[in-house]
Amino acid sequence: MEIKIRKNILEKNLTEAEKNRHFFREKNLFVLNMMSSPGSGKTQTLCRTLEQLMPDIQVGVIVGDICTTNDADRLAETGAKVTQINTDQFGGDCHLSAPMIDTAARKLGCDDLDLLIVENIGNLVCPAEFDIGENARVVVLSVTEGEDKPLKYPLMFQVSDAAILNKVDLLPYLDFDAPLAVENMKKVHPGMPVFELSAKTGQGFDPWLTWLRQQL
Amino acid sequence: MEIKIRKNILEKNLTEAEKNRHFFREKNLFVLNMMSSPGSGKTQTLCRTLEQLMPDIQVGVIVGDICTTNDADRLAETGAKVTQINTDQFGGDCHLSAPMIDTAARKLGCDDLDLLIVENIGNLVCPAEFDIGENARVVVLSVTEGEDKPLKYPLMFQVSDAAILNKVDLLPYLDFDAPLAVENMKKVHPGMPVFELSAKTGQGFDPWLTWLRQQL
Repeated sequence: MEIKIRKNILEKNLTEAEKNRHFFREKNLFVLNMMSSPGSGKTQTLCRTLEQLMPDIQVGVIVGDICTTNDADRLAETGAKVTQINTDQFGGDCHLSAPMIDTAARKLGCDDLDLLIVENIGNLVCPAEFDIGENARVVVLSVTEGEDKPLKYPLMFQVSDAAILNKVDLLPYLDFDAPLAVENMKKVHPGMPVFELSAKTGQGFDPWLTWLRQQL
Repeated sequence: MEIKIRKNILEKNLTEAEKNRHFFREKNLFVLNMMSSPGSGKTQTLCRTLEQLMPDIQVGVIVGDICTTNDADRLAETGAKVTQINTDQFGGDCHLSAPMIDTAARKLGCDDLDLLIVENIGNLVCPAEFDIGENARVVVLSVTEGEDKPLKYPLMFQVSDAAILNKVDLLPYLDFDAPLAVENMKKVHPGMPVFELSAKTGQGFDPWLTWLRQQL
């Protein structure tokens, strides 16, 4: 029964996602959905990304969290337009849904934007199931999380168009086999581009920015 | 509507959890539910914990993952009885529920056990909502995840009886304010014991083991 209910919820969400996609197309806006476990470094990756893209590319950000506006506050320092969704108003939802994005995008105002980035709630499971009307999805994995995560959470890596392997500056202090992690990503999603970088030091950041610019 | 459906699901789960609690009490078994984000080091913490507790204390483990038996394989090397739940058979569920634990506990066999540990699915949101009939809950946070996680995912820290701050061996290489992380945990759950340790090096492990032995 639980599976049937979830199927209904996902179908309704997909209908709303199609409406969002239509709205974003009308605004000529590229929408990127960024997903990961808690603490993989999505916000730091975005801060550095915004600093490099703006002002040539006008970027807005919708940040999802159950509680707090910490990430929105950090991102606003880059000068980007930022709005925060707190899902504790929606029963503490573990993912962003298409209707939440619709409300937030209209609140943010999209007319002057080229790129809208959605920083999803830190969760390597549920956000992968909820289409929000985006053009592309990126999953961030940190080198502190273990090489087998793509095999344990395959859906997230299958639905993503690219992956970031973050915090590579910590590799000297870890027993982490980065080539094996990349191999595991490609096992569940053959051909997916993987960017090994450090959002903290900037190491390896250029290929990621090049890929992102090519999407727009 | 989604909130109402979830309320129904949680109520049904609670009924099943009460049955589990009754079953575990009959078996004179202490049940610990261990939860965290993906990659915080639950399995490594458990491996070291089992090595220290056994054979004086007979421990069984139920491991939850969407896919793979990697963690069960690692835990079985300690000599503990281990069984794996893969939720891809249940639509890729992001949490363990009371009925899944009932099935797994009976499959494992509990007659000769003193302690049953449930390693939940790596997810800092949903598992906090699902009572599985346990006696105590422990949340593991890694020092690579950021100090504000207790504020962003408060429910997980509110429902937990103790917290482990893992991977403290990495502190010299991070900009992580451990006292602030502990302060944030105590802000959402005053008085909760917090064990700062490294499952990799064994640093700080004794207070955790002492606490766990006291619970039994």
